Formats: sequence, C-alpha cells, structure tokens
Amino acid sequence: MAQKYTIPKGTRDFSPEEMARRNYIFQTIQSIFKKHGYLPIETPAMENLSTLMGKYGEEGDRLLFKILNSGDFLKNLDTEDIENKNLGKVTTAIAEKGLRYDLTVPFARYVVQHLNEITFPFKRYQIQPVWRADRPQKGRYREFYQCDVDVIGSHSLLNEVELIRIIDSIFRELNINVVIKLNNRKILTGIAETINAPERLTDITTAMDKIDKIGVEKVYEELRGKGLDEDTINMLEPVMNLSGDNTSRLNCLKELIGATDTGSQGLEEMQTILGLTKQLDLKAEIKLDQVLARGLNYYTGTIIEVIAKDVSIGSICGGGRYDNLTGVFGLPDVSGVGISFGADRIYDVMNELTVFPEEALNSTDVMLVNFGDKEAAYSLGILEQIQQTGIKAELYPDAAKMKKQMKYADQKKVGYVLLIGEEEMNTGIYTLKNMKTGEQTKGNLEEILTILKS
Amino acid sequence: MAQKYTIPKGTRDFSPEEMARRNYIFQTIQSIFKKHGYLPIETPAMENLSTLMGKYGEEGDRLLFKILNSGDFLKNLDTEDIENKNLGKVTTAIAEKGLRYDLTVPFARYVVQHLNEITFPFKRYQIQPVWRADRPQKGRYREFYQCDVDVIGSHSLLNEVELIRIIDSIFRELNINVVIKLNNRKILTGIAETINAPERLTDITTAMDKIDKIGVEKVYEELRGKGLDEDTINMLEPVMNLSGDNTSRLNCLKELIGATDTGSQGLEEMQTILGLTKQLDLKAEIKLDQVLARGLNYYTGTIIEVIAKDVSIGSICGGGRYDNLTGVFGLPDVSGVGISFGADRIYDVMNELTVFPEEALNSTDVMLVNFGDKEAAYSLGILEQIQQTGIKAELYPDAAKMKKQMKYADQKKVGYVLLIGEEEMNTGIYTLKNMKTGEQTKGNLEEILTILKS
Repeated sequence: MAQKYTIPKGTRDFSPEEMARRNYIFQTIQSIFKKHGYLPIETPAMENLSTLMGKYGEEGDRLLFKILNSGDFLKNLDTEDIENKNLGKVTTAIAEKGLRYDLTVPFARYVVQHLNEITFPFKRYQIQPVWRADRPQKGRYREFYQCDVDVIGSHSLLNEVELIRIIDSIFRELNINVVIKLNNRKILTGIAETINAPERLTDITTAMDKIDKIGVEKVYEELRGKGLDEDTINMLEPVMNLSGDNTSRLNCLKELIGATDTGSQGLEEMQTILGLTKQLDLKAEIKLDQVLARGLNYYTGTIIEVIAKDVSIGSICGGGRYDNLTGVFGLPDVSGVGISFGADRIYDVMNELTVFPEEALNSTDVMLVNFGDKEAAYSLGILEQIQQTGIKAELYPDAAKMKKQMKYADQKKVGYVLLIGEEEMNTGIYTLKNMKTGEQTKGNLEEILTILKS
Repeated sequence: MAQKYTIPKGTRDFSPEEMARRNYIFQTIQSIFKKHGYLPIETPAMENLSTLMGKYGEEGDRLLFKILNSGDFLKNLDTEDIENKNLGKVTTAIAEKGLRYDLTVPFARYVVQHLNEITFPFKRYQIQPVWRADRPQKGRYREFYQCDVDVIGSHSLLNEVELIRIIDSIFRELNINVVIKLNNRKILTGIAETINAPERLTDITTAMDKIDKIGVEKVYEELRGKGLDEDTINMLEPVMNLSGDNTSRLNCLKELIGATDTGSQGLEEMQTILGLTKQLDLKAEIKLDQVLARGLNYYTGTIIEVIAKDVSIGSICGGGRYDNLTGVFGLPDVSGVGISFGADRIYDVMNELTVFPEEALNSTDVMLVNFGDKEAAYSLGILEQIQQTGIKAELYPDAAKMKKQMKYADQKKVGYVLLIGEEEMNTGIYTLKNMKTGEQTKGNLEEILTILKS
C-alpha cells in the first residue's frame, strides 16, 4: 500500500494539463517582451541574506525563506541567544543565504554587480519563481512565478508608453479585457501639498485608494481616524469626486493641484503619456485614476495597475517608475520603469473565462498502435518518417489489448491513431482514425501525412 | 561608490547572451521530447525533508540544502543537542523542508501522490534546477539544471529504443558528435556470477568501469586491493579485453556469460535493442560497452551513457532502466526507463566546439533612431506596424546623440537601424542601415519591411 506523501503547504505540483496552460501564458508573455527588444536574464534561486534582508520591511524579513548553512552550521552559534529566544541573532549565526522574495532586488543587485557588462538603456525581462513564507490561502502560494520586464537607465516617458503597449498586446493575445489604470506619484504628492498635508502623503493616499472598495464616507472616516481635520478632508473632496474621461480629469486636476511644482510636473508627464498612447491602436481601456496608489516606498513617477474587466480578482499586472532602483546597493540615480505580470492570477482569470485556445493544449498528434513485435519493428520506421515532418508522434510501447491502447490515446487527448497490422504492412495502406470524430480513413504514408499535417 | 555585491558561491547569474545560448539548448531538447509524445510536469523547488532524506545515501543527506522553519523555529529545539553538536537532531528540530537534489525522487513522489490522475505508460519530461551543497569547482555548481525524460509503467524495450532516438536527434540538432554507450545491469551480474563472485558485483564493476582512465593493470591492482584472488581476476580477463564491433562483442559475451540466467537475459535485451536501432537512421555511434557501470543502486536493466566525441568532458547524458522507481514511497514494481541531459556540460561542449547557430543568438531585428519628440511620436506608429509583422523592433527611448544610439545598437547586436528624421517624415522614404555590412538603403515602409523580413 502506497503511503500518503505530500509537498510543503503553499507549493504545487503541475500536471501536464496545467503545464500546457501555464506554458501558453509564459510563451505569450515572453514572445511579446522579445518583440519589443527586451532580453532575458536569470539570477540564482538563493541570494546572500545580506542582499535580501532589510529590503522588504520587517514583514518581508520574516517571510524570507532562509537556508541553513552547510557543514557545521552550529559553529558560530551562541547558546545564550537560543536561551533568550533571540531569533534574529540565531538566524544570522546559522543561515547566510535565503530564497529570492521577488525579482526586483536580485535585478538591482545584478545591475550593480555587472555594471560594466551592461549596455544602457538596459531592457531586460525575467521569468522565475519566487518564495515567500506567507500564510497560504486561495490564490496565494509560497512558491509562485513572477514575470518582470524593466528598462533602466532612461528617463524617457516613451518607456512608459512601451510598457503600456506590452500590457495591451499581452492581454489582447490572451483574450482578457483589461483596464490599464495610470497615476503618478507626483500627482499624489501634489494633492497632499495642495491640502497642506505633505507629510501625510501615505495616510492620505492609502485611504483614498480604497474608495472603490469601501466608498467615500468610509475613506473620510479613516482619514479622521488618522487625525486629519475636517477642513483638510473637505479640501480633498473635489479630488475624490473627480469623474469623466481622462481629458476632463486632467483638466480638473490642473485646476486643483496645478499650482504645486510637483503636482504640475506629474500632470505634464501624465499628459505626455496619454497623448502618445492616444494615437496607438490599443484595445485596453486607459484610465487616469488619481487615487491609485501602490509601491509608494519606491515608485517616484508613473504608477500602473491592470484590472481584468470580466473577473473580480484584483490586479493582474502592475508597476511603475522608480528613480533609485540600485540606491540600496550604493549606486544611486539609476532611473527605471518596470511592470510585473502575475502568472498565477492570469491563469485563474483565463480558466474562469475559459479562453485557453484548444490547440495550445494539444499533446501528441498521432499514436501508432502496437500489434506485436514484428509490427512494432516495422512501425518504428514509419514513426521516424512521421516525426521527420515535425509531427508529434509515438508508438504505444507494449502489444497491449486494443481497448487499453485506445483508452491511453483517448485520455492523453491524442488527435489521431494509426493502425498498422499485418495486412497493412503487406499492402502499405494504413488506417487512420480521427479520435474526435471517430472517422476512419485508409491511405498510404503520403496520404496519411497529408491528413496529419492539415 | 557602489559596494561589491556577490551571489552565493557555486551559483550563477545568466546574462542575455548566456540566456540565448542556454535557451537554445533547452528549446531544442524540449521540442524533441515533445515530438516523441512526452509531456512536461513541474514539482516545487522545496520538498519535505522526509521525502528527500535517505534517498541519496549519507553524502546526499549532507549535501541537501535545508530550509529553516518559518516563525519560531527554535520551539522544538533541545539545547542539549546543540551542546552535544548533534547536527542531525538539531536539523530535524529546526528544518522540515529542503531544496530538491535531483528530479528523480520528486518524480517518484509525484507518481505516488497523483497515481489516480496519471495515464500509464506515463511519458513525462521535467526541466528544472536542482541544488547541491557540493564543493564548487570548474564545471560543478550548487545550482544547475537537469533535463529528465522518463517513461514509466511499461517493460517494453521499445522505450529504450525511443530514448536512444531522442539522444540521437538532440545531439544531431545541437551539432555534437556522440557515442551512445550501452550496457545492462544483468550483463554485469552475469559477469560477477560467471567468475563466482556475485556478492562482489559493485567492487568488480566500479573497478572495471575505470579501464579507459587507468588501464587494465591498475584495474587488476584495484581488484587485488579489494581482496579478489588471482584466479578470479584471471577469469575476468576475457571480459576486460573484449573488442570489435557490437555483434562480435555480443557473440563473445554469449560464450563467456551466456550460461548464467541473468547474464543471458541481459544479452537478449541488448540484442533486441541493438537489432531495433540498427534499422533506424541514427547518426550517433552505438557501442556495447560491457564494463560500463553507473547508477547500480537503482538501475536494474539497460544502462546508457553518452560521450561527446570531440571534447573530453565526461558524460553529457545518461540513464537507465529501474524496476522499482517508487518503491521507497511504498509503491513497488513500477518499472521505468529514463535519461537525464546535463545542460551545463552540453553548454560547455557547444562553446568549445563553437556550434551555437548565430541566428539563435539574435536580439532585436531593428532599432528606430530617436531624433526628438516629434520624430519619436511619429516613429511610434511605424514601430507598431513593424512589430505587427512579427519583427522584433524597438525605438531608442531618448533623443540622445547619434553616436550613443548607434553604439547601443552595435553592442546589442541589432541587425538593422532605421532612420526617420524630419525629411523622412515628410517624404515617407526612410533610411535603413545594415549593421553588419554598413550598407544603407532608402525606401518606403513596405520596401523596408521586405528587407527586414528577408
């Protein structure tokens, strides 16, 4: 009796069916990255903890998977630290490495380490798993893939436009209707300055950002709870209630916050981006969302978030511009802009919308039935000729009962089955069965190949 | 000044150039796996230590990367175990998970765990990194990729033949001349039985296996050192000195060990495989090597090893048949046969032979020069039309000096540069420069596209 073996919670095995769907997503994303001139890099699964610690806040440090040193990992350990339950010091003594938590910090480390080999502007993409010791729940895993694309070493807003085009192309190809929400850290700063509360930027923006979920009144309540007075809150009202299309929002914002230096700079950037995207053939809806706030610890300009229109699941892609990507590694003033696609959520959205194209999920094109040693030996030669044309083909390895072989072909979703028994060997006329329609055709190899290739 | 940041020893960053080469290898391998009806699966980077420990021998247990439990990892720790330096007990108390060490044990665990979802014979491939805390040295890394392909649930020797065809196709496609060495565990057993030393199988075979490296005399010395008497060693001589082609070796072996049940069964299997491969259009040399020994802990039948002919680097692919893959997980009698390609060694071989095809390493096909805001806005539309034809294209994001833009195109190995200045905007006649030949052509978009697509 087989025992019950499992994998660590929050991790997953992927079956051939799931892999076909996942690879369809990855290949689509990757081919569009490439089409825009982005090139791949990869970094190791493990980084030195000194590279990772302190980059994701206290919670991030806690959620990092740490790897026990090899050999005598106890040699630097002070037993007093154990008795005092000093987890931090014990960790430092016994673990030097950790699994990567995202792709951004390893990328920043990569840029600093390989500075002299890189041609700037550096357009790179990176598709790799990341690991977080988070509490697993529906749609949240401890091992998941990120697909990041960034360009660094250029301040041009054409980069933002390019990323918007990439988002549009990818979701168009994947058949997901999306809204691309745009904002700018500088607009948020302009708002905070206009209501004379520049130091409350984070409080204000994180509250405003919830308007869609909790409504205006609850946002005001939260702001009151954070100590903002009624006058200040009243001044926020016009920003909160902004509506209409992008042009009218932009014009209103100019009146509201255009008097601040930072605000007006943010609006100018927004106007440039909206102007350039307007002339493009985009399918996605572009929406200026003046309350959108994310990544305020590092984003300094444009903020991007992508929402699926027909499925409620949160954002499926997001990013922004950061003027100090490599600053924590001692190389300041490297400006870049990048976005990250959440493959797992996109997978869930596509499953819910049932938009995976059937041809992407195909396995073997044709299976040759095995009638016995002699027939199998003969079939090997036919198999070789079929595969040489690029068709995916296999010969059932055992001379099992026909029923068993057909069941295999059926469960593996093989397109056709080719029957070569003794009579077929003698005449050179084979029987081909279409597994979907059940239709049978007879023909020589050339005729069979014509059907298989069609 | 940027500080010096590094990655853990034995791990690597891969630059775009290296990624292009590596992806060429992976894609070639993968496309041939698929052509033969194998489907991909993936398993998590981390497995429970209970799944991994005890599967790779004592050395393997030591070389496993172990992951510190999250949260209060000290809670189950007995300080006495620390004082006694009882590394094993301390590890069990603070680490439940480890990084996978190979793809075979996770695959066996996968089969047992997903038994009811699998269609047998199960033909799967798996291309993922593995981790070993081995001492890093030239060509040996702590993180490296394995490409495994296995079929389980079938005893048919047609599976061995299929794997030989896969090996042949992959190395033919990669332009590496190889020898595929074949042996059979049962032949080795037959040899040990014939010289009346069946219990010394491992000692005898590991010594014999070194004949190419150390010569016959040293092999005898080693056997003497292991306590074999001269008579027994003399009986080995005909086996050691076997030469000639596969047929004559097979015939000699029949005389030498054909009297043993196991030996004759091994010879029969070998004869079937050699017979079936003979009729195929193989480029690789197939060589019966009666002293080849590898994986004797698990291989029960065919043993396969692939050697590059023109580079001395050891084996670049290997595998064999195992009759008890899932036995350690409580599911005995699952027979399978599989091979593993070493991507890192194949990479080194291809670099040494300089056989990477140039087109596989191409990045962007065409870069549009940026002459300023107006020209860039106009160029965006042209860029869109170029990319829609499938051509990889990018617009330089800044209106930098021409020299800088050309240097970028040059370093990124861009094929063509397209110049659209004010005059070009007015006339619709653009200038295209071939970056390799320096040749310049003028034409409208249609004419430019024709050149780019050719």
